[in-house]
Amino acid sequence: MADSLFVEMTQAVEQAVTENAPHTEGLLSPEREMLLYSLESGGKRVRPLLTLLFCRAAGGDWQNALPFACAVEYVHTYSLIHDDLPCMDNDDFRRGRPSSHKQFGEANALLAGDALLTHAFYLIAAGEGNVSPAQRVRAAKELSRLAGADGMVGGQYIDLAYENKETGADVLFAMDRLKTACLIEAACVMGCIAAGADEEKINAARAFAVNLGLAFQIKDDLLEYNDDVNSDVENGKSTYVSVFGFEKARALAAEYTEKAVAALTVFGEKGETLKEFALTLLNRTK
Amino acid sequence: MADSLFVEMTQAVEQAVTENAPHTEGLLSPEREMLLYSLESGGKRVRPLLTLLFCRAAGGDWQNALPFACAVEYVHTYSLIHDDLPCMDNDDFRRGRPSSHKQFGEANALLAGDALLTHAFYLIAAGEGNVSPAQRVRAAKELSRLAGADGMVGGQYIDLAYENKETGADVLFAMDRLKTACLIEAACVMGCIAAGADEEKINAARAFAVNLGLAFQIKDDLLEYNDDVNSDVENGKSTYVSVFGFEKARALAAEYTEKAVAALTVFGEKGETLKEFALTLLNRTK
Repeated sequence: MADSLFVEMTQAVEQAVTENAPHTEGLLSPEREMLLYSLESGGKRVRPLLTLLFCRAAGGDWQNALPFACAVEYVHTYSLIHDDLPCMDNDDFRRGRPSSHKQFGEANALLAGDALLTHAFYLIAAGEGNVSPAQRVRAAKELSRLAGADGMVGGQYIDLAYENKETGADVLFAMDRLKTACLIEAACVMGCIAAGADEEKINAARAFAVNLGLAFQIKDDLLEYNDDVNSDVENGKSTYVSVFGFEKARALAAEYTEKAVAALTVFGEKGETLKEFALTLLNRTK
Repeated sequence: MADSLFVEMTQAVEQAVTENAPHTEGLLSPEREMLLYSLESGGKRVRPLLTLLFCRAAGGDWQNALPFACAVEYVHTYSLIHDDLPCMDNDDFRRGRPSSHKQFGEANALLAGDALLTHAFYLIAAGEGNVSPAQRVRAAKELSRLAGADGMVGGQYIDLAYENKETGADVLFAMDRLKTACLIEAACVMGCIAAGADEEKINAARAFAVNLGLAFQIKDDLLEYNDDVNSDVENGKSTYVSVFGFEKARALAAEYTEKAVAALTVFGEKGETLKEFALTLLNRTK
């Protein structure tokens, strides 16, 4: 049953992500193409799926959470575009295709990121139907806080400040808490908000997200270590593997995943699909 | 009376713009300094003052509109930081000081812009007090639409697409409608929303803003033409002066200002300070 649910949700996300892109016309038509180029580049849609799964787990109709799910994916996509820019990570490729600035030029990539970030809040604010203004305001508040200077952008700031420097575990955890876990937290919490969940469930979603986010990041390092044992050492950047060693890092990923799963208790049986999803992420091979 | 009102409002804006900056701590402390560097760089605060003046003109308490006013100023500030980046206008100076990327490096300037844009929506969503969730959602919807791919960012996209190209009046008007007038529209409309104004007043604010925005941009070109008669010709970019000639451009600025002022009728006597403000902008000498 869970498998068909994941397929149905993924299809709904894919469709909504495209349909919700700004419908620019006339002189602005090429802009839409630039946005869709990055939005439809084959991401795993982890964050929007978490939004839908938490809405469902909290007793809501997950379809109601689609605008919030898209908003999170738009923020994630903007962050990748800006992250790839020459002044940041200077990545020419993203998911096997030229990155946005290689395809459209640096200035257009900058603007595409700005447009996606701005539009994320339009998706939260503009929707009609079964989500009240109070729920929308709460969602906008969570997303803007968790994606901003104290959240995801803050994590990128730390990443930059410690670029090419060896760091201890404390900086690593602080950075990933912000850079990766905050947006996952926004995704999970916004799902609960769409369902009209109480604070107990929202706090459980936060605990799940923070732990899953760290597990997710450690898993990334483990996979990268498998791919290329020297890459971390070469650029001098600390990773969980370089700080803790491979075995301890693997144990940490499992430990944070366990903590994430434990936080789901409050959702009862409805938390089962979330548990399954978390374990799938931890056991992924790429 | 109007003069002391302007002074009072300007002081309130200056204070709120600083107080509302994200209070980053610990590893993130330097981020706050970067944001304040750009937020406190001596701008004219035209947009936030318009928000407060429209709130007052629509019968509201203008203090209630301060979070919205700050949100608009944060969006304006982010747009300047990103606009100054090497891949955009490549401006080393802004208001007589090194631009953000000259001061803090390109990557930090990029992040500062992202943080300010994100925080603008936090200011709209997070406030408490006399503005309802429905008003906040409406404000977030207006700002995200008018600042996004179909609005301000769209204008920057057109600006880029026609960079170093001579264009006709149609492209020039389309570009400035988006690039300049849209954010002014957001400022004016959000003031009305904070006051709980009806659609008639909101539409009047839109008409005022669109015309003032064009007058403002034409006035900019006129001032630049006075400053340096050759600068436009050198970079091959069309301006209202190059397209229409100096006299006709001056007449156009006056015409749009008149239209803006005419739109204020619905506010009755309370629109007088707005009229005064519009005329001050048209008659400015720098």
